[in-house]
Formats: sequence, C-alpha cells, structure tokens
Amino acid sequence: MNVLVIHGPNLNLLGSRELSVYGPATLEDVDRVLRAEAQSLGIDLEIHQTAREGEIIELLHAGADRVAGALVNPAAYSHTSRAIADAFRAVPYPVVEVHLSNIHAREEWRRTSVTAEAARGIVAGFGPGSYVAALRALVKVGEDT
Amino acid sequence: MNVLVIHGPNLNLLGSRELSVYGPATLEDVDRVLRAEAQSLGIDLEIHQTAREGEIIELLHAGADRVAGALVNPAAYSHTSRAIADAFRAVPYPVVEVHLSNIHAREEWRRTSVTAEAARGIVAGFGPGSYVAALRALVKVGEDT
Amino acid sequence: MNVLVIHGPNLNLLGSRELSVYGPATLEDVDRVLRAEAQSLGIDLEIHQTAREGEIIELLHAGADRVAGALVNPAAYSHTSRAIADAFRAVPYPVVEVHLSNIHAREEWRRTSVTAEAARGIVAGFGPGSYVAALRALVKVGEDT
Amino acid sequence: MNVLVIHGPNLNLLGSRELSVYGPATLEDVDRVLRAEAQSLGIDLEIHQTAREGEIIELLHAGADRVAGALVNPAAYSHTSRAIADAFRAVPYPVVEVHLSNIHAREEWRRTSVTAEAARGIVAGFGPGSYVAALRALVKVGEDT
Amino acid sequence: MNVLVIHGPNLNLLGSRELSVYGPATLEDVDRVLRAEAQSLGIDLEIHQTAREGEIIELLHAGADRVAGALVNPAAYSHTSRAIADAFRAVPYPVVEVHLSNIHAREEWRRTSVTAEAARGIVAGFGPGSYVAALRALVKVGEDT
Amino acid sequence: MNVLVIHGPNLNLLGSRELSVYGPATLEDVDRVLRAEAQSLGIDLEIHQTAREGEIIELLHAGADRVAGALVNPAAYSHTSRAIADAFRAVPYPVVEVHLSNIHAREEWRRTSVTAEAARGIVAGFGPGSYVAALRALVKVGEDT
Amino acid sequence: MNVLVIHGPNLNLLGSRELSVYGPATLEDVDRVLRAEAQSLGIDLEIHQTAREGEIIELLHAGADRVAGALVNPAAYSHTSRAIADAFRAVPYPVVEVHLSNIHAREEWRRTSVTAEAARGIVAGFGPGSYVAALRALVKVGEDT
Amino acid sequence: MNVLVIHGPNLNLLGSRELSVYGPATLEDVDRVLRAEAQSLGIDLEIHQTAREGEIIELLHAGADRVAGALVNPAAYSHTSRAIADAFRAVPYPVVEVHLSNIHAREEWRRTSVTAEAARGIVAGFGPGSYVAALRALVKVGEDT
Amino acid sequence: MNVLVIHGPNLNLLGSRELSVYGPATLEDVDRVLRAEAQSLGIDLEIHQTAREGEIIELLHAGADRVAGALVNPAAYSHTSRAIADAFRAVPYPVVEVHLSNIHAREEWRRTSVTAEAARGIVAGFGPGSYVAALRALVKVGEDT
Amino acid sequence: MNVLVIHGPNLNLLGSRELSVYGPATLEDVDRVLRAEAQSLGIDLEIHQTAREGEIIELLHAGADRVAGALVNPAAYSHTSRAIADAFRAVPYPVVEVHLSNIHAREEWRRTSVTAEAARGIVAGFGPGSYVAALRALVKVGEDT
Amino acid sequence: MNVLVIHGPNLNLLGSRELSVYGPATLEDVDRVLRAEAQSLGIDLEIHQTAREGEIIELLHAGADRVAGALVNPAAYSHTSRAIADAFRAVPYPVVEVHLSNIHAREEWRRTSVTAEAARGIVAGFGPGSYVAALRALVKVGEDT
Amino acid sequence: MNVLVIHGPNLNLLGSRELSVYGPATLEDVDRVLRAEAQSLGIDLEIHQTAREGEIIELLHAGADRVAGALVNPAAYSHTSRAIADAFRAVPYPVVEVHLSNIHAREEWRRTSVTAEAARGIVAGFGPGSYVAALRALVKVGEDT
Repeated sequence: MNVLVIHGPNLNLLGSRELSVYGPATLEDVDRVLRAEAQSLGIDLEIHQTAREGEIIELLHAGADRVAGALVNPAAYSHTSRAIADAFRAVPYPVVEVHLSNIHAREEWRRTSVTAEAARGIVAGFGPGSYVAALRALVKVGEDT
Repeated sequence: MNVLVIHGPNLNLLGSRELSVYGPATLEDVDRVLRAEAQSLGIDLEIHQTAREGEIIELLHAGADRVAGALVNPAAYSHTSRAIADAFRAVPYPVVEVHLSNIHAREEWRRTSVTAEAARGIVAGFGPGSYVAALRALVKVGEDT
Repeated sequence: MNVLVIHGPNLNLLGSRELSVYGPATLEDVDRVLRAEAQSLGIDLEIHQTAREGEIIELLHAGADRVAGALVNPAAYSHTSRAIADAFRAVPYPVVEVHLSNIHAREEWRRTSVTAEAARGIVAGFGPGSYVAALRALVKVGEDT
Repeated sequence: MNVLVIHGPNLNLLGSRELSVYGPATLEDVDRVLRAEAQSLGIDLEIHQTAREGEIIELLHAGADRVAGALVNPAAYSHTSRAIADAFRAVPYPVVEVHLSNIHAREEWRRTSVTAEAARGIVAGFGPGSYVAALRALVKVGEDT
Repeated sequence: MNVLVIHGPNLNLLGSRELSVYGPATLEDVDRVLRAEAQSLGIDLEIHQTAREGEIIELLHAGADRVAGALVNPAAYSHTSRAIADAFRAVPYPVVEVHLSNIHAREEWRRTSVTAEAARGIVAGFGPGSYVAALRALVKVGEDT
Repeated sequence: MNVLVIHGPNLNLLGSRELSVYGPATLEDVDRVLRAEAQSLGIDLEIHQTAREGEIIELLHAGADRVAGALVNPAAYSHTSRAIADAFRAVPYPVVEVHLSNIHAREEWRRTSVTAEAARGIVAGFGPGSYVAALRALVKVGEDT
Repeated sequence: MNVLVIHGPNLNLLGSRELSVYGPATLEDVDRVLRAEAQSLGIDLEIHQTAREGEIIELLHAGADRVAGALVNPAAYSHTSRAIADAFRAVPYPVVEVHLSNIHAREEWRRTSVTAEAARGIVAGFGPGSYVAALRALVKVGEDT
Repeated sequence: MNVLVIHGPNLNLLGSRELSVYGPATLEDVDRVLRAEAQSLGIDLEIHQTAREGEIIELLHAGADRVAGALVNPAAYSHTSRAIADAFRAVPYPVVEVHLSNIHAREEWRRTSVTAEAARGIVAGFGPGSYVAALRALVKVGEDT
Repeated sequence: MNVLVIHGPNLNLLGSRELSVYGPATLEDVDRVLRAEAQSLGIDLEIHQTAREGEIIELLHAGADRVAGALVNPAAYSHTSRAIADAFRAVPYPVVEVHLSNIHAREEWRRTSVTAEAARGIVAGFGPGSYVAALRALVKVGEDT
Repeated sequence: MNVLVIHGPNLNLLGSRELSVYGPATLEDVDRVLRAEAQSLGIDLEIHQTAREGEIIELLHAGADRVAGALVNPAAYSHTSRAIADAFRAVPYPVVEVHLSNIHAREEWRRTSVTAEAARGIVAGFGPGSYVAALRALVKVGEDT
Repeated sequence: MNVLVIHGPNLNLLGSRELSVYGPATLEDVDRVLRAEAQSLGIDLEIHQTAREGEIIELLHAGADRVAGALVNPAAYSHTSRAIADAFRAVPYPVVEVHLSNIHAREEWRRTSVTAEAARGIVAGFGPGSYVAALRALVKVGEDT
Repeated sequence: MNVLVIHGPNLNLLGSRELSVYGPATLEDVDRVLRAEAQSLGIDLEIHQTAREGEIIELLHAGADRVAGALVNPAAYSHTSRAIADAFRAVPYPVVEVHLSNIHAREEWRRTSVTAEAARGIVAGFGPGSYVAALRALVKVGEDT
C-alpha cells in the first residue's frame, strides 16, 4: 500500500519558525516519526514538500494510478486554494487533510479550510502526532471500504 | 491512564439515523471498536452519552481529578455551545473533539465549530475510525508533554 | 393514532407573560382547545412542557416507536438549537413546528428558525389556532403518505 | 363569509414542474381540495392565479370591501416583493401566507419571506394541505376576534 | 426548430441610452443580426420585448409546447427576479441567459444574477454578438442532447 | 413645461392605510396640493398611479419626448427595483424621487433606495409637502441647467 | 419665524473643491440664494459653518428656545455621527437634512446617513436648490402642524 | 426583600480556571462578599449555581412569587441563549445581568450578549465587585420605582 | 481620592429629552445623587459635561496626574469613537463606562460600544443609579488592586 | 489570426472527473471540437493546459505580441486569482472567460468570478460548446472593433 | 518648501502609553528626528498636535495657501473620520498618511483606514522612521510632478 | 548590508500597462532609481521579478541567511496570499511591503492586504518613490534595533 504525503508552503522551515505555535520539531523529525509508523503498518510513503500551489495539484494528479490515499497538509493554501480542493475532488483516492496546530484555535481566517470541504477527513492540533493519527485513520478508512 | 468519552445529542440513534451520512454502525459498535483500541493501549475508558448540554459540562468538570484526557463528540452542540467550549477551557486535561462525518463537507453551519476553538485538536470524517485516531492522538500528546 | 405535543421554554407562563404578543390564553387553554380537536379526529395526544433543550430531544427520541407524528413549539430554541433540529431529522415520524405568534413579524432574530429546516412544515401566527391547524395538517400529511 | 385566494407566479404549472419538490397535484387539484373544505365551512372562495406582482396587489386592494380574509401563496415573490408586503399591511382584512413546500428546508434565499413579515400568519410544507390548514386557521382567527 | 427570444426592461431604448456601456446598436440592429444568424442555421425566431416581469414569465410558459429553447436577456431583472428564475426552472426547454455588457465588470449589484442560477448557460459581454454566440451555443446543446 | 408624476404601489390607499405613518391625506389631496403649486408655476402635470413595476417603466419611457422632468414616488419598489432605476438612467430628463415619510427613520430595509441611485435628487419626509418641494427643486434644476 | 442653518465640515471650501461633484457655487452663493428665499417667506435665518461635530451639537442645543426649525447639512458627519443624530432627537424643533449632491449616487459609504434617521426629512441632489426646497418644506411642515 | 442570585455554567470552577481572566477568587469568595453586602442592606439572598440552561429558566420562573429582583451571571449562555432572555422577559421582577470580566474587552463573540437585551441593566468588569455593584443598583431601581 | 466624571454629548438636555428613555431626572439631579454618594465614601468628584469628542480626550489626559479613576458616559460617542477608546487605553487610571439606559435593549447600533472595549468595566441601565453603582465598583476595584 | 487558449487547473482530468458535472468529454475532445471550429474560421490556435497560476500569467504576457485574443478557462482560479485578473487587464488583447459548467448554478463560491471582472466577456454552461461559442464571440468582437 | 505636520489624538502621550506597541520615543523625539531630516532637505515644518477632529480639518484648510504638502497621522480618526478624508480631498496639496505602528498587524478595526482613501500615499510601521520616510516620499512626489 | 527586492506578478509589464494608474515608468526605471538610492546608502540589492506565488516564498526562504531585510511588492497576491504572509512571518529578517499606487484609494478588494498583516511596515502610493522610501525606512529600522 502506497501513501502520498504532501507538505505545503513554509513547512520546510518547521523547527525554526514560530516555535510557540508549531513546536521545536523539524520537518525531518515529522517525517521520521511518520515513516516509523508507516513501516509498522507495512505502508510505503512518498513524501514531498513544496511552496507551489500548482505543484501540489500536479503531485496529486500524478499519484492517481499508484497510491491508495494521501495525507496533505496544505498549510496556508487550506484557507484560499479552491484549485487544490478541486484536485482533492478529482483524484480517485481518499485525501486526509493534516494540520500540526489546531486551526480552529488561531486567527479567524485560519478557522475556515476550503480544502477540507473536499477531503475525506481532517486531523489537526497534535503536532507530528497529527500525521500519525491521520495515517491510522486513512488505513482504517481503507479497511472499512 | 483514564480517558473520558462523551457522545453528544442524537448519537444514541446512530445506525438508525441518516445512514447515508453516518453509516450503519451503532453507538455500541463505535464503543466496541474504541474499547478494543483502548485495551491494546492499556487505557481505561469512561463512556457517556447525553443529549443535555449542561450534563456534558458537568461530566467534564467531574473528570477533572481522575482523567488524563477526554474525547468529546459534541455533535450539534459543536456549532452553538459557547458553554461547552468554556468547559473545555476550564478543565485541566486535554480535550480532543471527534466527529464521525467530515463537518467541513456538509451544511454551511456545520463547518464552524465553536467548541473546537477550545479543544486541543480535532479528528473528523472517519466514522468510528475518528474515535480510534483521536485516542491515538491523545496518547501521543500525553507522551510529548 | 398517537401524536406527541411538546411545548418549549417559557410557554408554561403563557397568559401571564407579554400579553400583547401572546394573548390571554394560558397553556391549559391551549391544551384544552387542542385536545377537543384531537378527540374529534380520534387522535390520542401526549403533551409535555419543558424548558430543557436536552429533554425535548429525549422526548422526541422516546416517541420513535409509538407516535405517528409530533407538534413541537420549540419557542426560543427554534432560533438556536441545531441539536433539536438534528433530533427532528433523526426520528422516523413527521414533526410539525408550531408558533403562537408570527415569528416573521417580530425581532430580526426570531425570523430565522433553524429547527424549521428539519421539520415537515410550519404553522405560525394564529395563537392557539396554530396548534389546531398544525394537527389538521399533520393528519392530512398522514393521509397523503 | 368570502375568502380571497391568490396563487402567485409559476403555480399554474403545478403538477408538471419540479415534481420532487411540489408533488404531482395540479393547481386544479389544489383548488378542488380547498373548495371542498370551504364548502364544508360555509365559505365562498374567490380564486386567482397570476404571474404579475402588480396584479396581486390590485387583487388584494379590490377585495378590501368584500372579503373577510385572504390566503396568498406569493411563490417566488415572497422572497423579494416589498410591494406585496405593503399591500398586506394596507388591506383591512387578515392575510395568511401559504406555501406548498417547507420554504425553510430549501435554498437559502427561500428561507426568508419578506411578505410573511406583514401577514397574519404562515402555513408551509403540507402540499395542498397547507391551503386547507390555512383556511381553518383563518376561520379560527375570525372567530377569536 | 423554434427559438424564443425575450428582451427585458429598458432594452427598447438601446442605441439611445448609455451609449458608452451598451454601444450604438438599436434593438432592431440586434434583432437583424440575430435573425440573419438564425436563418443561416434554419431556425425560426419568436422575438419579444417587455418591461413587465410577469409578462416574461407568461411568455416563457406560453412557449412550453412550441419552442426548442430560449434566449433571454432579463436585463435588470437578472439581479432581482426569483420569479423569472423559477420560470426558467419550470419550463421543459433550455434557457440561455444573454447580456450585451459584461455584467461582471460593472456595479457590484450587477455582478450577481439570480436568474442565471436557473439557466442552462450564460453569454455576456459581446454586444449584439452575445445573442449570436448564445444562439450557436443553444444549437450545440440541442445537438449534444 | 410638462412634468410627469408617478405614484407607485399602494399609494392609491393613502388616507385609509397606516395613518400613523402616512397621515390622513388621500392621494386626491396630494394631487390637489401639487396641482395648485404647479399652476402657480405655470407647469402642466401628467399624473399616474400604478401598482405595476413594468408600467412605471413604460410611463417613464413614454414621457421621453414630451416632459421636462418627472416626480416619481416608487414606494416599495424604491427598495428593490433595479429595473426602474435603469429606466431613470435611460430617460433623457431629470427624475426626482419623492417619499411622503422619511424612509431613513423607518424599517432597516426602507433605508436603502436602489432607485435613488439613479435619480437626480430625493425629497422625503414632508408628507404631501414632499411633492411640492420636489416640484420646486425640479424647476430650480431646470433653471440652472 | 427664525430658522437655524448649519453647514458642516469642508463646506467652507465650496466652489474651490471637487467642482465636478459640488459645482462652482461658493458657500456665499448658497447663502445668498437661501437668504433671498427666506426674505420672500418672511423668515429670519441664523447661518453657521463649522468643521466641529461638537459645535454642531451645541448650535442645535442653543437654538432650542428661539428657532422654529433647522436646516442642517452635516456633510461627512451624516455618515458617522450618532452624536449629531441624538442632538436632532433631543431638540424640540424639526430638523431638515440637506445635501448639495445626491448622496445615494456616490460612494457606498455616502449612501447611508445616520443623522437622517433622526431628521424630519431630507432633501438632496439639487445643489443650492436643495437648501431652498428644504426651507420650503420646513415652512410647509410648520403650517401643517 | 429577597433577591435571587444565579451563577451560570463553569462558574463553579472559579479560582481554578483561567486565573488571568477571572482572578483568584473562588465562587465561595464571591458569595461571601455578596452576602456581606446583602446583610448590610437587609436583603435575603437565594443563591444557585448550575450548568443547565433549562434549570436557569426554571429557577427564574420559580422566583416569580417570592423575589424582588435577580442577579444573573449567565456566563457563556449570555451569548447564545434566547431562551434565558425570554425568561428574563417573562418574569415580573427586574433582572440584572452580571459579569466578572469586561465582556466588551474579550473575544468578539463575548462582546454581544443576547440576554442583556432583556435585562434591566448590566454590570461587568469588576470581578466580585460586579455582584456587589449590581445588588446596589437593583436596590436603587427598587427605590426609584 | 479624586474621581473624574465626564458626561458626553446631549446629556446636558437630560430631563427635557426623550423622557420615556432617559426618565425625568436632569443632569443636575444625577450630579446631586452622585455627589452625595461620593461624600459618604470620602471621594472628591471633578465633573464635566461636553459635546466635544476632542475635549473628552483632553479631560482624560489632564486627569492623568491627579485622579484615581474616572466615570465616563460617552453617550453616542460610545458607538463610534475609537479616539476616546484609545484615550481610555492611554491613561494610567481605570475608567468605568456608564450609561443611564440599558444600551443592549435599544437600537442595534447602540448595542455595540467601541469605548467599552477599552474600559475597566461597564454599568448600564439604572438611570442615575448607574453612576452610583459605577462609583462603588470603581472604589472596590481600587481596594482590590 | 492567432488565438491563445489556456485551460486551467484540473482540466487535464476532464472525462475522468465528476462526470455528472463536467460530462464525458476529455480535454482532447474539447480541443478537437475547438480546432475544427477554428479551422473553419481560419484561425490558428495555441493551446496550453497548466495547474500553475503563475504560468497562466506568463502565458498571457507571452502572447502580447502575437495573438489577437485569448480564450481562458481559469477553472478554480476564477474564484480567487486577483493576479490572473490583473494579467487580463495588463495584456493588449481581449480575453474571453470560458467555463464548461454554468458556474452560477453550482456552489455559492463558484458563483463569483474575480477574473471575469477583467475579461471582455464570459461564456459558461455549454460544455465543449462554451469554447466554440466563445471563439465565435471573440471573432465577432474583433470584427466590430 | 513648507510642509504641514499634524499629529492626531493621544499622540501627545507617546512614550508613556502602550510602550510595547508604540515604543519609548516621545512626540518630542519624533519631532526632533523629523526636524533634522527636514533641515537636511531644506524644508520648513509647521507641526501641530490636537485631539480634535474639527481642528485637524481647520489646520488642513488653513494650510491651503502656504504649504506644499502635509504629513498627517490621524491616529484613531483614520478609522472613522469621513470628515478628515473629505478635507484631504478638498485641499490642493498632497497629503501623506503616517502611522507609527503597522496598522495592518493590529486589531481588525485598525486595519481599515478611511482617511487613507483620500491620501496621496501611506507609510506605516516604522516608528518615528515612518515620518522620515513619509517626508522623503512627499519630496519625491513633489519632484516628479 | 544586503537587501532582497521582490517584484510580484504583472510588474514586468510596468510602463505598458494601465498607465493612468501606474505611470509611465518601467520596471527597469524603478530598479535604476532604487539601485541609485541603495548605492548612496552602501546597500547591495538582490532584485527578482516573478509571477509565481510559490517562487516568492522560495526567494524569501533563500534569503534567510544572507539578507538584512526585504522589500516586497506582492502586487495582486497582497490581497489573497496567506502563504506569502506566512513566509513573511517565517523569515528572520524584516519585510517591508511596497506598492506603487495607493491601494486604499482603488477597488474595494485592493484595500485589504493580507500580506501586510505579517510585514514590518508598508509604503504605498508614491510610484517608484515607494521603493526608495521603503528602503530608507528599512535602514532606519535596522539602525533602531
């Protein structure tokens, strides 16, 4: 089982940026925790990070034939990108939206996610644990279908 | 480790209500899946279901001295109850908000959760799997703290 | 044929409260008029009054197996209670929303009913006559189905 | 006792239009059911159908001297016509607003009725039964006054 | 193949009114261009102009049995008439909404068309060319169905 | 000098309708006062009353060749009719909007006039005196041009 | 009969400011025209110009014992000053709000007057003619009372 | 003179909850200060705390025959409960709304109180001093009536 | 202990203005009641009334070195004056906002106070009693600090 | 005559994505139909598809010297991209906005196009026929200029 | 070259007020830095500080004949004063709006400046450096014109 | 001292695009003026222009180790890009937002900058002079820190 993981804009700066919000873990730390979980579940991960909205869409399209699901943290694009949301709708596999922080507990504009409208589900607020829980949830969805 | 679980209004009718949205699982099915996960993690669950906003608040208060965290599905109260949100703020343990369906993909009014503002995090959209993933996330939060 | 009747918060003070809006009839007067109509139609009524949102939900659930329909005047909860609306959606019988006054002709906030979204229909503005007309309409709906 | 009945725009196509919303009854069916009820109550009905906002106003004015009340289904004009609402306010008899479908359960814009602000009351959601219940309610209002 | 064409309020003054917005062509010029196109496509046109909302609805109803489609320029009614929109929904043939100017590039209120919600499609911004393109599009829709 | 006067919907009921708002003067009284003023100014008046939005537009168009200006009280259409506003824009003479009551001191929706956007000016709040002052103002505008 | 006239902020620059909106007349020109009309009506005018909101309120209060009415052009304060509106409400004589330009035909924020809520009536759009018509209307109101 | 005191949801946790907002005083401390003030004024207090919206309404009703006024801190219900507001309207004695913190200086949603609409007055921002000042104000209101 | 008291615009007309809202007491009556209370508490009052927003700000600044607190009734400026609110923030002593009427029970625009955002607390709805209760609350705040 | 054609994000998945909305035609089908029409009109097409907002802007700029017009389907970017709209404004040739579906008949957010503000015109709702009609309209605009 | 500098309400308290927002510099410090810059540019400054909205307008008017431009920090009036904005529009010289703090990074209401609508440009966020940069920009504008 | 300069979408067309808004200067002209100023201040500039949102973010990240500050003109992205704003927040150096035109004096949507929320300050309205003044301000900020 292959799972696509996409980290959106500014997540590459994790660990050096707004530590009080995002915590000290770097993106490498997040990936390490996630890979460990994936290995224990027998899942192969394909992980990308990009600041480009269009590239997120292309990555989603490219995965259509080879992945069973995707974990996507669209970061700031969650709140504006109708195009990424349409890509979630267009691909044949379930997409889980992931956020490190609880977006509902921050600025007003972060409380609305237009991409989440088109996701299968959402996990937010648990730091790196959000990715782990999202992977579990994605597997569970696969089992139930 | 004790974890409090509160199912909000109308969840007792699960499995007989709006099947296309909530699926065929009954609340007993949800609890069974959740208890199995808890057992494997060495967690004791204290599970309640109530239609009463005030009782949800009282249950949260009552847990203050004996639980390490709570999973709460406030159901429709998520969208209106500032009082439950204040209770999330008032208790000394982390509260994870859980939803069976992806609230962001439904009616406009279901897309805003006023209780999630005060939760540690949120898991939504995975049916009974939401509770399981939320329990995992809660444990992870406990380990990180 | 059994019909459930639920009077919401503050309706117990009818006849002693804001007479210019609600008129001089007491809740007992309303019930008397309604029972007379029910008797002439061969209907058994089960009448409740409560100020508690959660109790309205529980009464609706409890009626699931024994009533053919319900007349509910959610009073102020009409304008705020997504939980009662979800209960209307969850029960297997038709619910008719009833208001003594014409809610569209009063304060701005009374003009929107979130519970009416989930009702079969609505009758408002005729004082005790609202309940009588609603009972007639409920019977008619039953005949047409 | 004379009662004026006005069916607004597009109601003449009833039975051939959006059957899932409005049901199979034609406007003739509605009128037949209503006339039967009126006859049993000793009421003379004067029934009109028009697509013209101005004509609805003129019909309301014309009835001032000879009718004891009116049942008006302004259809789409309910949501836009301040002029019809002013006519409701200007005539000396009570006007009951009637809708076949439950306007609160449809598109957002159908949930607000500007004409209902000026009506005596409203009955909605019971198909042809809405007119019957409205007639009953109108009679009741007449008796109470 | 018959096609109904309805020009809405104030379009009769075309060529003498706000030339900087609508250009110098008169309504006769528009009709001449449109008739030429129709003739080349073997289509019979039935053209009306009216300032009356109700008459637009009646014309749409009247066409139900004899036209294959309609081109309607509701002019200012596009932005307010829920009743015309309901007529678009009620007739059995496709309606194309046409505007001479690009309504999206003018005053805020002209940017929302409530009638377009119920149309098959919309063509706007090409002066008399809007009607010609709309006729082509209508024919294309007919071929595809 | 000819001046067109158009009284909109429900103004024919003046003197019998909502006296506390509109006062005891009938429409005939208004016209008498206005004709006296016109006579003293050497102006010929052409006065119409209609409940029909489309007819107001047609009357405005018809006046294009023979009137030097118009006084229009669109009544409730002031707040909704973009089509009448477009007619104000389309005719070659100045239109003064007149209201008996001070629309800014009444219900929220009466405080915005969409037709006033397209008028030369507005006079409101002086009962029949509004028409007289508007006529004076119209004459003054003519002199200044 | 004494009438108070208050010109609000920036009106002292009339004739040198935004000529395309306000025209070439200076404030002295406006006063001259107005004084001539007043003289012909046997009215004594007391004219003030000030940029200070508080001073407008004080002038209104000071007039309480000696004027029969006031013409006030609050200029930009019309759109923001609840305090001037409260002064209109507090004084025992009628206040007519005057504007040189048609405020309904300009920027969005100029279309709402919070002071007009508390005025007797409003005259706008006729340049200096607005003051003249307003004086006439004020006299007419005095005669009718 | 009897005065009813109702503390709303989460106030029982005072002193252990969000100290930076609410201060270190417990609810017992508040009651002690308030009882001292009451004693000095010769007033008997009846004090309740509840998390249940419906129970607040029932307590208000129950006081109808025996109290001269009430001090109510609806806490979070202030911002959502139209039902408690209707109870304020329904009881025959004056209700003073009390808040420990200045609700106008906190989150946007705390700045609007729907219950205050129906209260006699409001005191907020003085910690336990709010109750004391409110009791004084209630006594003063009683003296003035 | 010195306390500054500032009465805002139009309060000088108290007792002669809108008696049904503000009652028969004059500003002198209010001051007399307040001075009596102050004397019993050993407080020296410095009382001002002004219609000028800028003067309210200057009075607040001027008090910085000699007062222990202020009672300010900004009247209509409460709803618009960000500048007075900034002055509340800028001075080193606590400011209590006072209103004679319950601003939450009046027009929509009176329900939001932008100055209250920056006050220590608010007392509203008790007529002259509001000032007395506010003085008590201010003293209490002083004691607690 | 050269015409630029730009298909925006997710359009490459046409024919495999949300068939009930977009129909079974693939993007190749759309291009084939469009090329046939272009050939019959003697037009050379330059066709691009991209998911990247910035690339759409660059393509528009690049065309400045060699194309007579452009057909652009910005897809989801229509509803969010002020930058593409500015590009429409910046290039010297007319841009026609094209949509396969009727954007006015779908989700609320799809009903507003910020790019259409800056386009010459819009054609929407005719599937591949939208492109054909848009090409016709573009040619017509060229002839008229 | 003369330049007018106007500091608005509460700026006189700079250095003693909300230091975390505005920094430790006093208004004298700001003026000293600004005068140094002006001297190096050969500019004469005329500096005022006032809390009075009307006085800001009068100062702007008074400068009309003798200044080449103005730097205005309207402070809180930026967000409310349409009258000052009209004064910006009315004077013949360019006005640059200056803010010490970045108004876009503070409370929601501070993010909209109604006076900036009428300014030549805006400089905000650089503390005393905002005035210096604004003076430079003003000189540059003068050179380019 | 190195300073990063980023010109956003469509700025490459400066001098050929909407001259009445942006003036005749080309981007090369702007850069020349800015380089001259930088040279006089001993600053090295690194200048980029791109239409790609993602590239702006990448350029900002890339500068983290080598620049002392940045001048960014996000052009249309100012009004929509939460992702660029997050990049402003994420980098360790101050970012100054620059606009050629006064964004507050243009279309409604251009008046709100979501990127300015996260900038150190903003300079707008002075054409190429905006960049020069912004550079000065950035240097000043550096000196003060």
